Amino acid sequence: MDTKSRIESALEKAVARACGTKAPPRIAEALRHAVFPGGARIRPRLCHAVAAACGDDAPAVTDGAAAALELLHCASLVHDDMPCFDDASLRRGRPSVHALYGESLALLVGDGLIVLAFETIALESVQAPARMAQLISAVAHAVGMPHGIVAGQAWEAEERIDLETYHRAKTGSLFVGSAMAGALAAGADPNPWRLFGDRLGEAYQVADDLRDSVGSAAEIGKPTGQDAAHMRPNAVARLGQGGALHHLRELVGGAIAAIPPCPRAGELEALIMSEAKRLVPKELAQSAA
Amino acid sequence: MDTKSRIESALEKAVARACGTKAPPRIAEALRHAVFPGGARIRPRLCHAVAAACGDDAPAVTDGAAAALELLHCASLVHDDMPCFDDASLRRGRPSVHALYGESLALLVGDGLIVLAFETIALESVQAPARMAQLISAVAHAVGMPHGIVAGQAWEAEERIDLETYHRAKTGSLFVGSAMAGALAAGADPNPWRLFGDRLGEAYQVADDLRDSVGSAAEIGKPTGQDAAHMRPNAVARLGQGGALHHLRELVGGAIAAIPPCPRAGELEALIMSEAKRLVPKELAQSAA
Repeated sequence: MDTKSRIESALEKAVARACGTKAPPRIAEALRHAVFPGGARIRPRLCHAVAAACGDDAPAVTDGAAAALELLHCASLVHDDMPCFDDASLRRGRPSVHALYGESLALLVGDGLIVLAFETIALESVQAPARMAQLISAVAHAVGMPHGIVAGQAWEAEERIDLETYHRAKTGSLFVGSAMAGALAAGADPNPWRLFGDRLGEAYQVADDLRDSVGSAAEIGKPTGQDAAHMRPNAVARLGQGGALHHLRELVGGAIAAIPPCPRAGELEALIMSEAKRLVPKELAQSAA
Repeated sequence: MDTKSRIESALEKAVARACGTKAPPRIAEALRHAVFPGGARIRPRLCHAVAAACGDDAPAVTDGAAAALELLHCASLVHDDMPCFDDASLRRGRPSVHALYGESLALLVGDGLIVLAFETIALESVQAPARMAQLISAVAHAVGMPHGIVAGQAWEAEERIDLETYHRAKTGSLFVGSAMAGALAAGADPNPWRLFGDRLGEAYQVADDLRDSVGSAAEIGKPTGQDAAHMRPNAVARLGQGGALHHLRELVGGAIAAIPPCPRAGELEALIMSEAKRLVPKELAQSAA
């Protein structure tokens, strides 16, 4: 099975467990809406890519960790779209969960996805119990307090924000977690992968800032101009479009340079180059060409 | 250390990890507000009581599981108090998290507590990896989809609700999970404890319905009459106060009868009797005496 199929199949297995025949029908539908069809699945792909580079000797563990990372990412999107945050009615070109099912179900869908993520890691790594605790810790670190997504969102409620700390928590942490989880799932030392994940996460955030500032809603499938509207820190506001684009290229190069020695480094590098290309808005890619 | 100290100390350890010096200050304060000072800590006490009855041969595992159960309970209260659910401004006699810190931080506090709960189980059961996966599954089952707290809340969004299914998911599941986690933490078979936890959870829900219908806000520390205001299913509406009180006594007796053979059954029975007494509103206890 190719990576894409493994990811979708692991997600389907997890979601089917949560949305069994006895589940309340509306939330089951809403939870499925939050996960399928997905976006780029970049975090589970990153986890798979690093696991592959490290040998991927326990594919079920990798599949479980990758699915968990995506479920947690989906949870953060559902909650981030809610009225008390971005109040976004559009996500991946379709109505957001709260727009379609209401606020209370959106809140519950996010909660349910977080629980399902950790349950999935535990279930799928039962044959490798020594890896389970490390996987759960790495993933929890990436999404929770004090340095994960939750902390990143919470920095928005502070009067003073350090841009780097904010981005590292809100976006970078799950990239670091995805890279480290990939190594852990394959029984490898996760620490050499931290810098790689960190640079990739920062690159992704800068690319997101660029898309938010110049992309059209139709192209990226969600409302644009959100950072300006919510007065959030943004690399384009800080560096200008040209400066942000230059910074993005430096970061992608830095991520590639940080790949630890491993048998399949070339494939990983190719994946990152292709991701970086895809993330730059067409207008900028053309003007910079 | 006595049970109460063990519970508070394990919670303090977990919360301190989440609210380290580098955490965003406001959410750190809000998260702490959600957990301390606590309510009756009935779920972690139940976990401890069952673990003690089963030998409690790995106290750190019990402490971690008990803390996780309480963190998840606190998370459900924070989210349940939010405007899209009960819109309750009062909890445990103090302002609820969203009333004090706003909706967005309340949402994040709940998310952070869920993550912290699973991280705590993993960290504290690292010396007993064979118990870790089962503990995480049992706890996830109790709080997630399709049968846990999340499902219970989600039933409120359905047109047709089966009262028993609803209560079992919204409240009973975490009692079952607490009892089973106590057994699992001590390396015992969790299944004989299911019926015990189930009956106890139903008893607690009936007691809660009674308190909601007759208690004063000052006595129970949160707004009363919520079920009637939100048109939720309620044992008092179904059976009347007298009938509900009778049913409560039957359920407590049934829970005690369901305690599996174990060395310290007497202590467990005493705990349940004392809990049941505490949960009946003073007005009713006096009129029934």
